[in-house]
Amino acid sequence: MSTDATGTPAQPRVPVWLEIRRYIQDLIAGPGYAPGDRIPSERALAEQLAANRMTVRKAVDSLVAMGLLERNGTSGTRITAPRVARPVDAHTSQGIARIVRAGGGTPGNKLLHFEQARATGKIAERLHVPEGAELVVFRRLWTVNDTPFCIETSHLPADRVPGLAAEDLMAGQSLYGLLHDRYGITTTGGERLIGIGFCNDMEARLLHLKPGAAILLLRLLVSDEAGRPIEYMTSVNHPQLVVFRTTKAGAI
Amino acid sequence: MSTDATGTPAQPRVPVWLEIRRYIQDLIAGPGYAPGDRIPSERALAEQLAANRMTVRKAVDSLVAMGLLERNGTSGTRITAPRVARPVDAHTSQGIARIVRAGGGTPGNKLLHFEQARATGKIAERLHVPEGAELVVFRRLWTVNDTPFCIETSHLPADRVPGLAAEDLMAGQSLYGLLHDRYGITTTGGERLIGIGFCNDMEARLLHLKPGAAILLLRLLVSDEAGRPIEYMTSVNHPQLVVFRTTKAGAI
Repeated sequence: MSTDATGTPAQPRVPVWLEIRRYIQDLIAGPGYAPGDRIPSERALAEQLAANRMTVRKAVDSLVAMGLLERNGTSGTRITAPRVARPVDAHTSQGIARIVRAGGGTPGNKLLHFEQARATGKIAERLHVPEGAELVVFRRLWTVNDTPFCIETSHLPADRVPGLAAEDLMAGQSLYGLLHDRYGITTTGGERLIGIGFCNDMEARLLHLKPGAAILLLRLLVSDEAGRPIEYMTSVNHPQLVVFRTTKAGAI
Repeated sequence: MSTDATGTPAQPRVPVWLEIRRYIQDLIAGPGYAPGDRIPSERALAEQLAANRMTVRKAVDSLVAMGLLERNGTSGTRITAPRVARPVDAHTSQGIARIVRAGGGTPGNKLLHFEQARATGKIAERLHVPEGAELVVFRRLWTVNDTPFCIETSHLPADRVPGLAAEDLMAGQSLYGLLHDRYGITTTGGERLIGIGFCNDMEARLLHLKPGAAILLLRLLVSDEAGRPIEYMTSVNHPQLVVFRTTKAGAI
């Protein structure tokens, strides 16, 4: 701990429980720990840090509330493990249900929003359509064992998908299956960008996060076989429940 | 704004500048904006939101301090654009200097730390060495145009790299080049995981972030041709300066 007496008495600026929280955060972020691992018991931590057990509990409680730790009844407190490992090499949307099942979970989804809208600025540019062109915009919430982990928003040029309706997407159908079967469009993954974003109020509510919390943001442009953009998708992923994974091996 | 009068006078709970900050965050996170884009002027925002211009400035100042926006002198305020787009398909470490140069930047790096250590718990497990086996552990800070964007920490079984010394890595030499040329080890990329982490004090100081700020965390296990693990690496990436990119196209 950094509150060791240094000879000169000084006002402690950081509450002890916050220092302990920082200590645990550093511990679990270090190379000796991985998601799913059990952390030392509160008693062991209290002894190790010469701290009050209630103070340690407050730090742990706070990390549980932040979603970094999970209490598992009698099996102790563990580092929250991602429940969904999204492959980056393969397409990231079509397979969500399959990815969740492969991880032993039960997938679910809900259509949150479906509308016709007009293309503006960057969206028009990305989809190679004129400003003001009609778009179909829809948003789906994905769950694993009823826990929401991802919100995906898709933008498609309306003239490429005539008649596409909310009902078509209600049953959690694959968009790419629909594009292929009904519209004869074979899609090809384009550039995918994975970065950090911050969730807005709606996203926070749906993913059970605090507004402004950091999220994993995936942006993806999908094209048809001729290289014409067919979908621009943004995907807001829960920071603890999702990890992106690549397993592609190659000489480096 | 959500402060519209609803008939019942109530205490506003959120300061107006924070509401404006939230508004701008939502705006720039929306599909109409992308990194590098200029946001509306403070005057335009003040008019649009019927807010005081000083209040808008406070919100913008705060987003600049958070690293989400950048003021570019006379060219207005822009959404901070990542300066380093790290390919996920290719190996992510060897090429850092090349990746930075490909993006038009000048790469740099600094060896922060070099030590012999003992393998514990998860690290031993990951590297397939017994607990207590000797490891070489080193940490490098990478910069783009002198701006730090990434801290990489590598763990290697010491018996695979006899004689490896800090000097070998001081000149920013490629570890994989060294492994190949000196030790005859050809490396192969293994599973890479990209998720969200939170920076500790040291990382915050080096990357000019607040302690506890969200960072992009990459974890990577590198193996030799026989499939034996040779390096476990964790990479802490600046949340605004780095984005992971995959361009691999395939039928989806």
